[in-house]
Amino acid sequence: MTVHEERIARARAEIERHELDALVVAPSPDLVYLTGYDPIPFERPTLLVLRPGADPVLLVPELERPLAAASSMGERLELVAWRDGSDPYGAAASILGESARIAVVDRLWASHLLGLQEALPGASFTAGSPLMGRLRAVKDTQELEALRRAGRAADETFRQIVELSFQGRSEEDVADDLANLLVRNGHLRAEFTIVASGPNSASPHHDPGGRTILPRDAVVMDFGGELGGYYSDTTRTVVVVEPPEGFEPAYEVVREAQAAAVDAVRPGIETQDLDRIARSTIEGAGYGDRFIHRTGHGIGLEVHEPPYLVEGDHTILAPGMTFSVEPGVYLEGRFGIRIEDIVVVTEDGVERLNRSTRDLRVVG
Amino acid sequence: MTVHEERIARARAEIERHELDALVVAPSPDLVYLTGYDPIPFERPTLLVLRPGADPVLLVPELERPLAAASSMGERLELVAWRDGSDPYGAAASILGESARIAVVDRLWASHLLGLQEALPGASFTAGSPLMGRLRAVKDTQELEALRRAGRAADETFRQIVELSFQGRSEEDVADDLANLLVRNGHLRAEFTIVASGPNSASPHHDPGGRTILPRDAVVMDFGGELGGYYSDTTRTVVVVEPPEGFEPAYEVVREAQAAAVDAVRPGIETQDLDRIARSTIEGAGYGDRFIHRTGHGIGLEVHEPPYLVEGDHTILAPGMTFSVEPGVYLEGRFGIRIEDIVVVTEDGVERLNRSTRDLRVVG
Repeated sequence: MTVHEERIARARAEIERHELDALVVAPSPDLVYLTGYDPIPFERPTLLVLRPGADPVLLVPELERPLAAASSMGERLELVAWRDGSDPYGAAASILGESARIAVVDRLWASHLLGLQEALPGASFTAGSPLMGRLRAVKDTQELEALRRAGRAADETFRQIVELSFQGRSEEDVADDLANLLVRNGHLRAEFTIVASGPNSASPHHDPGGRTILPRDAVVMDFGGELGGYYSDTTRTVVVVEPPEGFEPAYEVVREAQAAAVDAVRPGIETQDLDRIARSTIEGAGYGDRFIHRTGHGIGLEVHEPPYLVEGDHTILAPGMTFSVEPGVYLEGRFGIRIEDIVVVTEDGVERLNRSTRDLRVVG
Repeated sequence: MTVHEERIARARAEIERHELDALVVAPSPDLVYLTGYDPIPFERPTLLVLRPGADPVLLVPELERPLAAASSMGERLELVAWRDGSDPYGAAASILGESARIAVVDRLWASHLLGLQEALPGASFTAGSPLMGRLRAVKDTQELEALRRAGRAADETFRQIVELSFQGRSEEDVADDLANLLVRNGHLRAEFTIVASGPNSASPHHDPGGRTILPRDAVVMDFGGELGGYYSDTTRTVVVVEPPEGFEPAYEVVREAQAAAVDAVRPGIETQDLDRIARSTIEGAGYGDRFIHRTGHGIGLEVHEPPYLVEGDHTILAPGMTFSVEPGVYLEGRFGIRIEDIVVVTEDGVERLNRSTRDLRVVG
């Protein structure tokens, strides 16, 4: 059994366990996970239909039939082609038949879901992420190795970027350096390179711009890319020459919050508990309302994927799960601080995939 | 009035004309078109809500509020933030209020549409593309200039690639050359570089691989990238040293079909008529069932966007519309042929944005 056959078998078991009749998978990391097939998602629907009691069927645009047939699972899937000008949703409905409860993957386009809903007015549709998220959350040995490599390449990138000069350069310049270093250290491509300096660092997803970095700036750098199909994602906050007023105690709080959450990682505890641990440290120091996001997110074939370290997420940690731990504090008009590492749940605890120092780094 | 304010005003008029109560716009080229705001689409919903009788509202994740506020339309939109752990769909429902007929953009994730449908069980949802497609189909002067530049850069790429040697090299190698040339000629990045040689050329969306290109191969090259936010997309089919058996008459048919469809472009005729014109030429030569895709697609902020040159698309051509004209013939196991140019509808006819020769090119 190939890795994809085994994953499809597990998906079909999950469909049954969730009392669903079918799962519809569009081009997305979910389709890559199940089949290795990775066409560009377009207005022409490509839909993998999985049902517990039937063989998998891949509905494809006629012009992509040869592409699908040549893919790694092409010979093991029944291919049904639809032609431009015909109704793909009618074709999907014929495959789905009497299915009454249908899950669809998160990244299916709304236009395609609306087409399916119209073609199957008696069916109910539900999000596939509880099912696919569960399958993908626990990584196998090969996936973990890819994530370790990505983590090391991101750490090496941080080691090199802090040797460069920051003051007098623009955020964009430093972001370009980060992107180049990510690739030089082995990434296929950089996916995001947040460089947020001075007051901009209080914007967690700041888009690096022309602002000139100055002495006494805090600089949040949140960067990652793809390596072997898997992602890196790490954040460090540095200061230029010396810390701004009031920075050091806040930095210490974020560092403690991150360490406390990472130290708590082990099989059996809930994801939301990790959020509570990080949050209570930050609340205890009086910055609770300035920690304006969840504590972390799963990572693998996507930068963000289930489980989420957030109040209300009841995923029970199991060995092989990988996610970020990234508490932050953001003081508008002054500075922001975030420290992020990717970790893996092991049999009895945790393995950090990022090992860059979490001591405060001063850059020039 | 800024270009974005003017576009939002037109969108609101279209919502009313379609007898809808609201349009929901997720991060996508539609959001870029309307606001210039271009965050990464993620599991956290960002939703622009447009209604005819109310001011536009942008629902954003709390951590991206500063990013949205700093965007070009940030000061002109009411921002409503939701926090991790709270219910974003409930927040969207509060904004949508009594809206009963709601359109959503095509690229909204299914998970977000399902969340909206659950939060608003009394509302009906419909695809936003008839509305947004109509708005975006007619390009303004600035958009046309960006598309012209992209077309010239793609033409220059073709001029340079056919000077290089093909035989003995792999498809991947030539695809890398195409990607590098696209960037060297001014593209921000290459988006796709299909190089399909020999029998692989019969697969319209072939993924270039390790196959070595040989004398007497046909090679389909379909390539494009982003330049100034807009896309190029052109296809030429060349032969290596000399044409394979039976190639030349088929090439002539595709060339005639493309010329006939381009020559027919003028305001007032329907998109499906262009498909019929190309198809009847190919059918007349006996290759009808080997023309396995539509004749073309709109192009702009997306590589594929409405209108489509396909049976059943009744868009009436108007000055400023831009689309590809790309008939093809695919003979399994032997060769494929496609010729593609981007064209603009003018006041009284057509302007080609690609001017590479359509005479058969022999490469070495």
